[in-house]
Amino acid sequence: MTDTLTTRFGALSVAARDDLKGAGVARGIAELAEMGLDFLERRCRRVELTSNVTGKEYFAFTRGRGGALSRPVNARLFDAELALTWLDSAVAGGFGSVDRGALDRVLYTCAMAYCAANDVVKTGDKKTPGTYFEILAGHMVAREYGTNPQRSIQVLNLDLETQLPTDFIFDLGETAARIHLPVKTSTRERVIQVWAHQRVLDGVYGVNRIRGVLVCLNETNMQTRSNSVIEVCLPGQWAIYQMFIAQLHRVYYLDIPERYRELGTKYPFIQVRPFSQFFDEADELIRPHAAP
Amino acid sequence: MTDTLTTRFGALSVAARDDLKGAGVARGIAELAEMGLDFLERRCRRVELTSNVTGKEYFAFTRGRGGALSRPVNARLFDAELALTWLDSAVAGGFGSVDRGALDRVLYTCAMAYCAANDVVKTGDKKTPGTYFEILAGHMVAREYGTNPQRSIQVLNLDLETQLPTDFIFDLGETAARIHLPVKTSTRERVIQVWAHQRVLDGVYGVNRIRGVLVCLNETNMQTRSNSVIEVCLPGQWAIYQMFIAQLHRVYYLDIPERYRELGTKYPFIQVRPFSQFFDEADELIRPHAAP
Repeated sequence: MTDTLTTRFGALSVAARDDLKGAGVARGIAELAEMGLDFLERRCRRVELTSNVTGKEYFAFTRGRGGALSRPVNARLFDAELALTWLDSAVAGGFGSVDRGALDRVLYTCAMAYCAANDVVKTGDKKTPGTYFEILAGHMVAREYGTNPQRSIQVLNLDLETQLPTDFIFDLGETAARIHLPVKTSTRERVIQVWAHQRVLDGVYGVNRIRGVLVCLNETNMQTRSNSVIEVCLPGQWAIYQMFIAQLHRVYYLDIPERYRELGTKYPFIQVRPFSQFFDEADELIRPHAAP
Repeated sequence: MTDTLTTRFGALSVAARDDLKGAGVARGIAELAEMGLDFLERRCRRVELTSNVTGKEYFAFTRGRGGALSRPVNARLFDAELALTWLDSAVAGGFGSVDRGALDRVLYTCAMAYCAANDVVKTGDKKTPGTYFEILAGHMVAREYGTNPQRSIQVLNLDLETQLPTDFIFDLGETAARIHLPVKTSTRERVIQVWAHQRVLDGVYGVNRIRGVLVCLNETNMQTRSNSVIEVCLPGQWAIYQMFIAQLHRVYYLDIPERYRELGTKYPFIQVRPFSQFFDEADELIRPHAAP
C-alpha cells in the first residue's frame, strides 16, 4: 500500500508540475483518493474521538491495536460513497461540474482520503498530505480559470533584480486582477506568512493588483492523550494581520471553523467561506473594480 | 543523562519565566552548558563533516556506531575549555563581563553544548534547544538593560481590544526606543514571520517606536547522506522583506553567515553582526534619535 500510494503520488506531482489544470492531474487526484478510500474502508477501522468543537463530530482511522491514528475526520463531511459517485465526472468535467450540494463533501472526502491513509501508513509525514491538498486546490482554480499558475515572480527595483519564490500566482490577463493562492492543510501561527507574502506582492506590484486567496483544509488539532479534538483559531490575530499587514481577499475552508466564518460579519470583514463557493464567485474574484 | 538534562531544563524554564535577567537564570544556563560539555566530552566522539561553507569547518557529536549525529558544530567557535574558564564570571557579572575577544566563542559553545547534547540524546526534539537559546539570548539582553521583557502587547484600536502574543519586548522607559527581540536557532523560510511581526508593531505603535533585533544561532543544514554542511541563506529575499514589509534594526548571529554579513554594505543595508557586538552598542540601539 505504502509503495503504491508513494509511486502514484510521485506521478501526480510530476503531472502537476507539467500541467496543473490538465485532466491528467484530475485523474491522479481521483486515483489517489480512490486508493485512500479503499485502504481506509478495507484495512482500517474508525475510532470515535471526543469533539470539543460545537456542532461537529470527529473520528480517526487506524489499522489496529496500538497503530497510529490518522488526523481527525469530520463525520458529516466525510462521505466515501458520495465521493466515489462523483469522481468520474470530476475527472471529465472538473470539480466545478460536481453537484453544488455535494461538492464540499466530495472535496473534503478526496482530501481526507489521501491525508488520512498517509497518516496511518507513514507516521510523521506531513509533507505529502500538504502537497496533495495543494495540487487538489490548485488544480481546481487552474481548471476553472483555464490557466496554469506561476511559482515565482520577478522583482525589479532600480538596481535590484531578483526572482521571489511564491505560492501559486494566476495571471488572468490585462483586464483582470491576478490571484495569489496559498494553500495550507492548516495554518496555526504560521498563517502570518500568508499576510506577509501578500504585503510583499502589494508593495512590489501595487495594492489590489494581485489578490490574496487562501485555501485551507481545516484547523483541527488532536489531543493524543484524551483522543479529543479542538479547533485552533486565532480570530483576534487574524483581524490584526488584516488591519496592519495586508488584506486577504478570501479565505476558503473545506471544514470551516465557525469562529473564522464569523470574521466576515465584523471589522475588518475577512471573508471566510466554504471552498465550494469559489465556483460561484470565480469571475467576481478577478473583476478589476470589485470591492477589495 | 536525559533525565538530568530534562529536569534542569525544566527548572531553567521556570526561573526564566520568573526573572529572565536574574542570576538564577545565568546559573541555570551555565549548569546546562557544563552538563552538556561534560556529556559531549566523556560520552561522545566527534565525526568530521564535509564543509561546503567557505572558510568554516564543522563536526558533529555522536554517542557511537549508528547513533544519531548532533547538529553541525563550527570547529573554530566551539571551545569547551574557554567556555568553562569564563562561565563562573558570566554567572557573577553577566555575559557582558566576559573578555570581548572570547565572548563569541563562549556564547557559541554554551548554546551548542546544550543543543548538541540534546540532539544526541533526544533525536527529533527541536523545541527545547530553541527555548534554551531563547533564554540565553533573552537573559543577556535583559541583564544588560536591567529589565525583564513582556511576551505580549495590548492592541487598542477603536472598538477592538486584544492581547497580541509577541517575542520578547523590552520597555526601556519613555526616553528610549523599545526592543522587539525574536530569537531563533535558525530562520530559513520562516524568517518572514519576524518581518511580519515587526510590521504589526510598526502599524500599531508607529514606525521606529519598537525596534526589531533578531538573534540567531546559525543557518547550517546537514545533508545526512553525505555528512556535508551547507548554510541556507536567502539574501535576496531578506532584502525584499526589509524593503516591503518592515525594517529590522539589527540581526545578530553567533555563527554568522558571510552572505548575510555582506547585506550591511548594500541597499537596503540590513545590519547583520556577531552577537558579541550587542554589548558594544546596547545604548546606541535604544537611543531614540538613532538612524532607523
